[in-house]
Formats: sequence, structure tokens, C-alpha cells
Amino acid sequence: MSSSLLMRLSTRGITAHPLSSSFRSVVISRNFSFKKNGNTKERVVILGSGWAGYSIARTLDPEKYERVVISPRPYFVFTPLLASTSVGTLEFRTILEPIRRLPGKIEFYQGWADDINFNSKSVKVETNAAEEAASKTVVPPPGGQITVKAKGDIIDIAYDKLVIACGAYSQTFGIQGVREHAHFLRDIGDARRIRLRVLSLFEQCSYPRGSDHLTDDDKRDLLHFAVVGGGPTGIEWAAELHDLIHDDLGRIYPQLLPFVKITVYDVAPKVLPMFDQALATYAMEHFGRQGIEVKTEHHLQRIRLRDGLLGNRHGALSIKIEEYGDKEIGAGMVVWSTGLMANPLISKLASKSHTIFPHSSIPTNPKSGETAVNRHLLVDPRTGGLMTDGQLRAQTVTDDESKQKGFMDDVFVIGDCAVIEGNPLPKTAQVAAQQAQFLAKQLNKAGEGSKMEAEFKFRNWGTLTYLGGWKAIHQSKADELKGWVAWVVWRGAYLTRSMSWRNKALVPFYWIISWIFGRGISRF
Amino acid sequence: MSSSLLMRLSTRGITAHPLSSSFRSVVISRNFSFKKNGNTKERVVILGSGWAGYSIARTLDPEKYERVVISPRPYFVFTPLLASTSVGTLEFRTILEPIRRLPGKIEFYQGWADDINFNSKSVKVETNAAEEAASKTVVPPPGGQITVKAKGDIIDIAYDKLVIACGAYSQTFGIQGVREHAHFLRDIGDARRIRLRVLSLFEQCSYPRGSDHLTDDDKRDLLHFAVVGGGPTGIEWAAELHDLIHDDLGRIYPQLLPFVKITVYDVAPKVLPMFDQALATYAMEHFGRQGIEVKTEHHLQRIRLRDGLLGNRHGALSIKIEEYGDKEIGAGMVVWSTGLMANPLISKLASKSHTIFPHSSIPTNPKSGETAVNRHLLVDPRTGGLMTDGQLRAQTVTDDESKQKGFMDDVFVIGDCAVIEGNPLPKTAQVAAQQAQFLAKQLNKAGEGSKMEAEFKFRNWGTLTYLGGWKAIHQSKADELKGWVAWVVWRGAYLTRSMSWRNKALVPFYWIISWIFGRGISRF
Repeated sequence: MSSSLLMRLSTRGITAHPLSSSFRSVVISRNFSFKKNGNTKERVVILGSGWAGYSIARTLDPEKYERVVISPRPYFVFTPLLASTSVGTLEFRTILEPIRRLPGKIEFYQGWADDINFNSKSVKVETNAAEEAASKTVVPPPGGQITVKAKGDIIDIAYDKLVIACGAYSQTFGIQGVREHAHFLRDIGDARRIRLRVLSLFEQCSYPRGSDHLTDDDKRDLLHFAVVGGGPTGIEWAAELHDLIHDDLGRIYPQLLPFVKITVYDVAPKVLPMFDQALATYAMEHFGRQGIEVKTEHHLQRIRLRDGLLGNRHGALSIKIEEYGDKEIGAGMVVWSTGLMANPLISKLASKSHTIFPHSSIPTNPKSGETAVNRHLLVDPRTGGLMTDGQLRAQTVTDDESKQKGFMDDVFVIGDCAVIEGNPLPKTAQVAAQQAQFLAKQLNKAGEGSKMEAEFKFRNWGTLTYLGGWKAIHQSKADELKGWVAWVVWRGAYLTRSMSWRNKALVPFYWIISWIFGRGISRF
Repeated sequence: MSSSLLMRLSTRGITAHPLSSSFRSVVISRNFSFKKNGNTKERVVILGSGWAGYSIARTLDPEKYERVVISPRPYFVFTPLLASTSVGTLEFRTILEPIRRLPGKIEFYQGWADDINFNSKSVKVETNAAEEAASKTVVPPPGGQITVKAKGDIIDIAYDKLVIACGAYSQTFGIQGVREHAHFLRDIGDARRIRLRVLSLFEQCSYPRGSDHLTDDDKRDLLHFAVVGGGPTGIEWAAELHDLIHDDLGRIYPQLLPFVKITVYDVAPKVLPMFDQALATYAMEHFGRQGIEVKTEHHLQRIRLRDGLLGNRHGALSIKIEEYGDKEIGAGMVVWSTGLMANPLISKLASKSHTIFPHSSIPTNPKSGETAVNRHLLVDPRTGGLMTDGQLRAQTVTDDESKQKGFMDDVFVIGDCAVIEGNPLPKTAQVAAQQAQFLAKQLNKAGEGSKMEAEFKFRNWGTLTYLGGWKAIHQSKADELKGWVAWVVWRGAYLTRSMSWRNKALVPFYWIISWIFGRGISRF
């Protein structure tokens, strides 16, 4: 082996997140930890690889715990830059962090957690590695239940401690056609499909007249980009799309620019509700100058494929909006970014009775003679999420008439699928990541005798939304910022905190490359 | 508009290929050029965007000619690095050059040239922008004819001069199952599918035992990578795969390494026939040390999907090889890289009679009273390619008994679909690119009074093949090189000559990133 290769091998270990400083405390933790199969480390199984799941996997000390991650996708997506990849400013892979590349020993199984047995302490997983990674946002049909075809093998994964961090699904409110025809923007596959569709629409409208050529009205319909939902995701995507068209596609297809239109629809009277009025107004005025229309108090009722060739060949859509009566709006694509709902695993767990020992972290062997008590998981009636106490432990209630409340001290719920009793928080990356950090630190400290924080406290770092054309708005308790400096500083800090060195190098490099040479415009 | 943006706009024009120095000769060329629709520039239509089509589009002077490119894919693929992208050393997009980003005005229509009318001087094109770009290698079914469903619109594109550069198809020799189950490696979509498949196979073999777990023999079958064809493409892919497994996957799935096997099959008694015996032996010894098996004089007879779950769920294959009798070999994937055949457009043009005026570059108006003569295109009986003279003009032969030979001086054939009469050349990127350069320079000089080169002459720059583990072999008339210096120098020179600045920056950056941090291993 050459010395250069040896050097490379040693540098391969470089990562953004040094191991916890407490890794010398193995002996202490041995005294504490529950031993399984003669192994000295507790086995922490984490369901999910989003902000919550990835953050805890990254922060949990591999010297103290056996880390096992189960997720339908083998990577974490840095979602704040997802819209950037969907328009080609960044390459898809630059915002992915493979779970298997986390430093320290880690087990990963690609699959859907299908059920949990809190008694035998195991998770039933349907494997999905045989397919392309399930990188598409899955949306339940109007009826509600998703019936996943059992394509994969079923495996059982045992745990000592379980962290449920499997997130939430996109909410379609049962609106007809959303599931079939709208684009979501939550996973990397979504971003890829959006990019292909945008570029394909321009290509399709660029042909000279043929035997069934597109009229100018057809082009106007196909190049109408509709965004449903005026939260940060929808607004940012509209802004990024505007940049792509203004900076790149406008040069390549100048004759098509007069046909392009971007519209954001929202049911609320105001978009960007998390920003104060002055910033939201600034954003809307900026959008106005860029030609992006924002239609508040508009209710989408149906999306359908257009009849005839326009629908069949070009995938043109018709959108029905309550306020417009029977007159439908044409569009080439609809990007859906509004609302979340409980995911099927959570619904399944919530719906049934579980045999759970009163203190499940104390030996759970059924032969020990303890009487099992049947319990339900406590569920937040509004969101369908699982209720936790301030230490993020899953709460339960007995099935008998006493309705006695309790918790499992070996099962934690964090992120979008969790609701802290008495402390409702927004379903954001910040909340998920902070919960994961809190829990990981608690677990790392366990048995060291150091004082634990009693309760999880959310610290709001503020919100940033990109508005296109190098403008952004940022709001937190401390300050308010506008302009591109805010964007670079804030996003840069975020990036530094969450990404590997690989992507810390690649993302700024792509920013420069795209700025100088334009965005990537090839479809494949 | 900010000054930084203006700066960016001006730098956007940076490219690897300055415009031809002869762009001040417009007036002279006006006297010469055939005028169409009052336009002073001749309209050169180029079919294809591979080495031949892209090179001529890039070299042809946009001040002198209206350039029109028709291709089913909107980009050029830098094929020498395709194997590198298929294992994640490079990102796919770094080896693509979008046709629409060529400097100077250029028209591009995405579609398949379906037919040519040499009399009215127009090309019938079936558009295909509505689908994902047709980035998959298309292989005809055993019967021979491809029936492409008419999904796209049909448009007619007029030309003054036509350059047929649409390449050749992969040859499957009618072997059962190749078309359905083998992976090709000719376009970027092929590379993407190969990458997904390789990574998915490792992921599939990594699960713990489940209800229908894989046995060690199953894993041995699934992790057997078979390569058919011992030319540079097949050998390089085997080498790149070895590097991926050795450098990256071996760290992530160490328990699977004992099951991995790579085998190269070839019907000939020797692989890499273009290298002399010493270099080929060096290559085979190097492969031997890396554990890659090379089986010469082996004839593949059939590929089929395995029966049962192994085939259905995991896509395992069975390969029948003549030399092994009825005993079939298991494999997770087969990469096919052997042989070319005429593409359907060429076969169609070759099979029928065309009405072609004797000197088609002189006015072709049917009303001029000239008597049209029915002719066939002259075809190379061995490869099915179109025959040209030394100036790369398409040759014809009259349909009458006189069998009078002639040529069209407004129709040129270059690259893999062309055969120069009396000067057979290998179907390689070098030949295609040199023919394109020759032809573009001839056309750029036309009418300037400068002396034209009478005949195309191929200059062999030598051949390089990467062998894995930083080793390569290079051979030309002048020298023979081994080792990694050869690789860097030679490939670097190639890169410099063919790629845009964007990719000239990205490719070395990715080499460094992959070298330090490992290859990209996320599937999506």
C-alpha cells in the first residue's frame, strides 16, 4: 500500500462532529447499562434518518451505546438546501449525509418500521433495499391507509432503548388529484423529479411548429408553475425557481420568457405567518418586483390531468380553485408544500393496545413474574402525534377504567411525530434537531452522576427564508435581518453545524461554480 | 442589476473552445453560401450529440453557419469518465456538456431523427422532450426492428447541409436475455442505473437473518459482478468497480467482502486486443493481484432471471456459458460492453431508394427541370454503416443497371455510423472527434480560397486503459506507458481538450474530494 493511500485512509476519518468528549466513561456506564447477550453496551435503536434521527445518531456516543438506525432511506437530507438542488444550483448528493458514513461503529438497516413490540422490545422492519431507495415522499390515498406491498423481507431488530423519530407525512387534506399529480419537496427524489419536470417543460415548449404544435396559450399553461402553501418551503421554492428561470433558462429559451408565470396559493390571509408583518410585507413586495404572484385566501379543490394530447403527452394540469368557480387554471406543474399528518407507523401504534410492563427498563423478561398491564400510547388528538413528557419519554395510559397515566423509560419520541405534553412546538428541523441533541446528551451522561437537565427546552434560533435574487429575510427574538449577508451568514452557520467536511467543501464550491457558469441544466 | 451580476454575466461566456479565428470572413462566405429564406448563413443540421456530433457543433463557426443539433439527449457525454461516474468517483453531471450551452447561437431539438428526405432537404424528427431524456442505451430486440411508440410530436427540420453523426447501437448478437437483464455503459442513465444496482446489492446482502434470509451462497451469487467484453470499456469498469469495493464498500460492509467476485468474460483468446502483448500481460497480472478473474474464450449463451424470491425480490441472474455446459453461473448484475451494430435510422436509410439530384448542393428545386435520379446510399456490408468518400460525403449508387456511383456534397456522415471507402477505422471517440474536426474546418474554410485538405487522415493518439488501484496502461506508436502518471497526464490532456471550464473545475475537485472522503455512496 502506498504512503499516499495510507495518508488518505487516515484523513478519511475527518468529520464535522468530533466524538463526544465523554468517551472514556465506558466503565462507569457498564455499571449502569442493561446488558443484553453479554454485550456491555446498550443497544439504542433509532427509527428514522431525518433531522431527529440523524442528529441523535450523530450525537450519541458510540463508545457507550450500540447505535442502530432503521430508515427507508440510507441518508440524511439537509432540507434547507433541498429547493436549491431542485433547480440545479447544487448537486443532489451535496446535501446528503450517508448514515453509514457516521464516525464510529454504526448499524444501519434500510427499511420501514412496520410495528413495535414494547414487551419483547423489538421492531418489525420491512426491508426495502432491493428497490431504489424510497426517496419519494409517500402520501396516503384519500381513504387514509397506505397499503405497502410486501416487497421486502421482514426482519426483527431488538432494542434496549428505542428512539422513535420517523417524522410525519405530507397532508393532502383529501383533495382530489394532489397525491397523483402534485410534486412534494421533502426528499431528494422529490427534488430530482421537480428538476426533471421544470427542464422538460421548457424543452417541450421549445419545438418549432409540428403536426400538433403547442399554441401560445398551451405554452402559457405549461409554463405556469403553481405552488400551494405559503410557508417557507413554498416561498423558497418559488424564489429558487425564479432565479433558475431568470439567470439560466431565460438565456437558453429567451422566446419562452413571456409565457412563464409563477403563482403561490395559500388559504390563509397572509403568507409566511412566522414572520412579523414588516418582513412579510418586504417579502411580498420583493416577489411583486420579480413577477411572482401570491394569491392568499385561495382554496385549491382539485388537480386533474388535462384532457387530450396536452394532458397525455405533456402532462398539463388543470387546477380548480374555489374562488374562481368553474373556471380552471392551467399549469405545467404544482408543487405542494402545506401541512403534515401522522405517519402510518404512528397511527398503527396509537390505534392498538400494547402489553407494557410498568417499568419497562427494569428487566422485561415475561418469566420474571411481573404482571403485564395493557396500555395505549397517549396521542395528541389534534396532530395524531405521540405524547411525551418533558424528558421525551413516550407516555402511556392504562386500558382499564383507572386510565392511569405512565411512561416508558426506554422509549423516546422526538421530531415531527412527537408532541411534548403541555409544550406544543412547531414541526420544524430546529425542534427535531434540538430534541435529538438533548436526548443524546442525556443518554451520554446517564450513569455518570452528572446532573441531568430535567426538561427539554426549545431555543428558537430564528427563521430564515430565501426570497430569490440574493435576498433573504431572517427573524428571531434577538434580531431582524434582510438581504444577502443574512443569508450567507445564517445558512453558512447552519451548514457548518450539520454537514460533513465533504459537503462543507462541495456546497460552497458548487455555489461558486453555479454563480460563474450557471446552474446544471441537463436532464437525465 | 448589480455589478457583481454583470461580472458574472460576462464570465458566463468562458469556455474551453474559443471561436474559430476565421469569424471575420462572413462577407466572403456570403458569396459562396447557398441562401435559404433570405438568410445569409447556411443551415447545417447535425444529427447526434456524441463525440462526432458534439465536436462538429463546437468547431463549426457560428458566424458562418446556422448550427442546428438534433439528438435524443440534450448533452454530450464525456465517455472516458463514464465508468468513474458509475462507481461514484465523479458526479454524473460533471461529465455532461449541455448542447445549448455551446458558445454562439445554436438551435437544439430533442428527438430521434426518424427519416431524411434528401430531395426536399429535410429531416423528420420525433420529439422526446416530454419523457425523461432518453439517456438509456437502446438495444433492439432479437428480431431486429425497434418499434418506438410515437409518443412525441413529429416535426420537420430543413437543412442546407446535413451531418449524420448518430452513432451505432449496442450489439447483443441476439443472445437471449441480454437486452432485458444486462447493463450497458454508453450513456449517463446507464451509469446511474449501474451505480444504483451495485450499491443496492450490497445493501440487500447486509440485512441480518429474516424470514427468508439470504444464505452465504445467495450472497456469493448476488455479489458476483460479471462483465462481458474484454475491451477497454469492460476492463475499465471492472477496475473502477474494484476500486469502489476496495476503497469504500469494504469499509462499510466488511462482512461482505469474502462474497465479492468480479469476472470478465470474453470470446477472444486475449483481452485488450489493441494493446501489445507485454502491456496486455501487465494488465492481466495486475488484475490477478486484485482478484479480478478474466475468462477468455468463454461464450455467453443466455442471461435469465433466477427463479423464486432470489430473482423476484433481489433480481439475481443466471448466466449460461457454453464452456460450462448446463451449469449456470449466478450473478447480481451483468455489464455488457461488446460490439456495435447499425442504428435504426441508418438501417432505414440504407434499405430504401432515395430521389437525389445528381449534384444536390447545386439548386435542388424540383421545378428547375433537372431530372431526379433514384439512388441508394452505399452501405458497408460488414458493419451496416454508410460509406463515404475521403471528404466524408455520403456515397450513393444509382438504382438502374448502370449502378453509377456518386456522392451528395451536402450530406456528410461521421463517427460510428460512417465507413470511409478504402480506409476502415475503429469505431472510437478519437476517430469520431477527428472526423468532426476535419469536417468543421473544411466547412469553415469553404469559399475562403484557402486550400482544403483533400482527404481525412486519422492520427492515432494512442489508447489508455485504467486498471484500478492507480494503475493504467497507455500505448501509441510513439511510446508505451504504465502507472498512474500516464493516467493523469493522458486523461488530463483529453479533459482539457474536450470539456467546458465548469467541468474542468469540477472533475479535479471531485477527484480530490473522493480521494480524501471516499466516493458518494447514497442511492436515490
